[in-house]
Amino acid sequence: MSEEAVVMENKQVIFKGYIDGVPHETDMEFKVSKIDLSKVQGSGSGSIIVKNLYLSCDPYMRGRMRDFRESYIPPFVPGQALEGFGVCKVIHSDNPNFKPGDYISGFTGWEEYSLIQKTDQLRKVQPDDHIPLSFHVGLLGMPGFTAYAGFYEVCTPQKGEYVFVSAASGAVGQLVGQLAKLRGCYVVGSAGSKEKVDLLKNKLGFDEAFNYKEESDLNSALRRYFPQGIDIYFDNVGGEMLDAALLNMRIHGRIAVCGMVSQQSLSEPKGIYNLMNLIIKRIKMQGFLQSDYLHLYPRFLEDVSRYYKEGKIVYIEDMNEGLESAPSAFVGLFLGKNVGKQVIRVAHE
Amino acid sequence: MSEEAVVMENKQVIFKGYIDGVPHETDMEFKVSKIDLSKVQGSGSGSIIVKNLYLSCDPYMRGRMRDFRESYIPPFVPGQALEGFGVCKVIHSDNPNFKPGDYISGFTGWEEYSLIQKTDQLRKVQPDDHIPLSFHVGLLGMPGFTAYAGFYEVCTPQKGEYVFVSAASGAVGQLVGQLAKLRGCYVVGSAGSKEKVDLLKNKLGFDEAFNYKEESDLNSALRRYFPQGIDIYFDNVGGEMLDAALLNMRIHGRIAVCGMVSQQSLSEPKGIYNLMNLIIKRIKMQGFLQSDYLHLYPRFLEDVSRYYKEGKIVYIEDMNEGLESAPSAFVGLFLGKNVGKQVIRVAHE
Repeated sequence: MSEEAVVMENKQVIFKGYIDGVPHETDMEFKVSKIDLSKVQGSGSGSIIVKNLYLSCDPYMRGRMRDFRESYIPPFVPGQALEGFGVCKVIHSDNPNFKPGDYISGFTGWEEYSLIQKTDQLRKVQPDDHIPLSFHVGLLGMPGFTAYAGFYEVCTPQKGEYVFVSAASGAVGQLVGQLAKLRGCYVVGSAGSKEKVDLLKNKLGFDEAFNYKEESDLNSALRRYFPQGIDIYFDNVGGEMLDAALLNMRIHGRIAVCGMVSQQSLSEPKGIYNLMNLIIKRIKMQGFLQSDYLHLYPRFLEDVSRYYKEGKIVYIEDMNEGLESAPSAFVGLFLGKNVGKQVIRVAHE
Repeated sequence: MSEEAVVMENKQVIFKGYIDGVPHETDMEFKVSKIDLSKVQGSGSGSIIVKNLYLSCDPYMRGRMRDFRESYIPPFVPGQALEGFGVCKVIHSDNPNFKPGDYISGFTGWEEYSLIQKTDQLRKVQPDDHIPLSFHVGLLGMPGFTAYAGFYEVCTPQKGEYVFVSAASGAVGQLVGQLAKLRGCYVVGSAGSKEKVDLLKNKLGFDEAFNYKEESDLNSALRRYFPQGIDIYFDNVGGEMLDAALLNMRIHGRIAVCGMVSQQSLSEPKGIYNLMNLIIKRIKMQGFLQSDYLHLYPRFLEDVSRYYKEGKIVYIEDMNEGLESAPSAFVGLFLGKNVGKQVIRVAHE
């Protein structure tokens, strides 16, 4: 290890403080601090220093912007950089499992360089000419695995079943729909713009898709697309769409509750009124987190990498350039601005 | 079979017409018609004529009082007698499976004598000196089997888990709590009067019980009784109690959605606001009907009869005398008047 200090400027996206409602760019600020890339704090710490290449913008991060300690993940610390999934290159290592030049994916900071002390959940990434590195925060990362675990393990899909996916062009939804098609299901997706609906139908292979913003009555819309009813609803949005889906489920239907992006920014969530259908239709409604299914991760990585390389699935990214674009990209998630998985390129490989 | 007509007067409880809100006694009326006990309509019909001994009052019947054809069971027919589970004695039979004198349980009319044309789901009842006949619409009938199937199949209980039961002294709840104790769980029940709370604690063996009407904040009440959280919520009421339970569930908790008696009489159900907890805690929430588990019925009958005879469980009935009392007994369900399983004795065996 080098003894010579290599002190660099390190631009950071700082979390200013806890918020109510929709996140705004002004809830974050930039700060330039210094970092010594040549050594980690305390020898024998097992820490590593990485250069951040790609950062992932995910809706669950909104939950870390309030002071709610009972969640599955702690809130952000005001005054410190935001945290999220990223793909990084190791610069310096005090850990025998990682060496300079390695690529990793896992939790890192919203900054140019990060000191990572908690390394046990990092994953090494093998560069592959046929798979973009950034996919390790998308198709092959948390969102992709969420789709995989949620669809196969929670929805228990059967060939020929009727599947509805909300936020269907998003990081998770687009893979759910494609896995459902591969399983032989009939798949309809909802999204919030004509561009996204076109993508769903023409690029992602959904049987049908609709723009929920153009529907005055979501119940009627779902009845139109599913005259026979819905066997599986993969719910990424909660709120009114969930309430409408409950009315349209078939007997023994399954609802995988993956996210509630429509509610995540509301201090007071909207009420759900149609749960009586759970009894009438004997519906299973299950919340889940991908982290409960990590034993399936190797199989997921193998399956989905193969599907991708064989051209059986595609994956759409919305790539923003530069750490400077990170706050607006994150805020855009809650306005539906992203088309596909929202990623920030911090540096070129 | 006798050729001689035996025409009897037949008092009936007639359903007047579809309703909104809580049922009232005035939604039903009495009528006396005639029935010939000596023959069924049309020979070779497979029908039977029965004398009704016990009729069951169940909250689900409220759902048949509105014109909602998409339910699992059709609405009542205005101008005809109400229908429900009963224990009956066969008077006349055109069906080789039943002979006069047999006791049966199953769907019958709210009247003194019924012509039963649909006999395939009737069950023969073996009189047993140690088990009251009326238990075949309670402990050993639909409510008991609902408790059994819901608790074991939907809740997948483990020894030592924390179980909450609402409407806990009711037809279903009282057995759920006792099965949970037999399984080695910690069990708390809620009910709507001091008398019921005392029964839960002193007769039904619940570890704790509380009167929800005396709690200004259900969330605080549940936090007090379950400082560690709830593993299993067996929900008979829906509404505010369900919303409070969602806040108090443990990770990987299960909610069996059995009934929503608090909502059943409202034209506009109350909103549920805390479904975000499904994700945070990875909760499975499942609606069910006992009729999906009929393959388990013989095992249920054997298990629960044995528990009862061995004194391991008790069962509390609220027995009303006479068909005249049926409308008020039924209406009383929605006011929480019944203490234990509500039954109407139409005739003595």
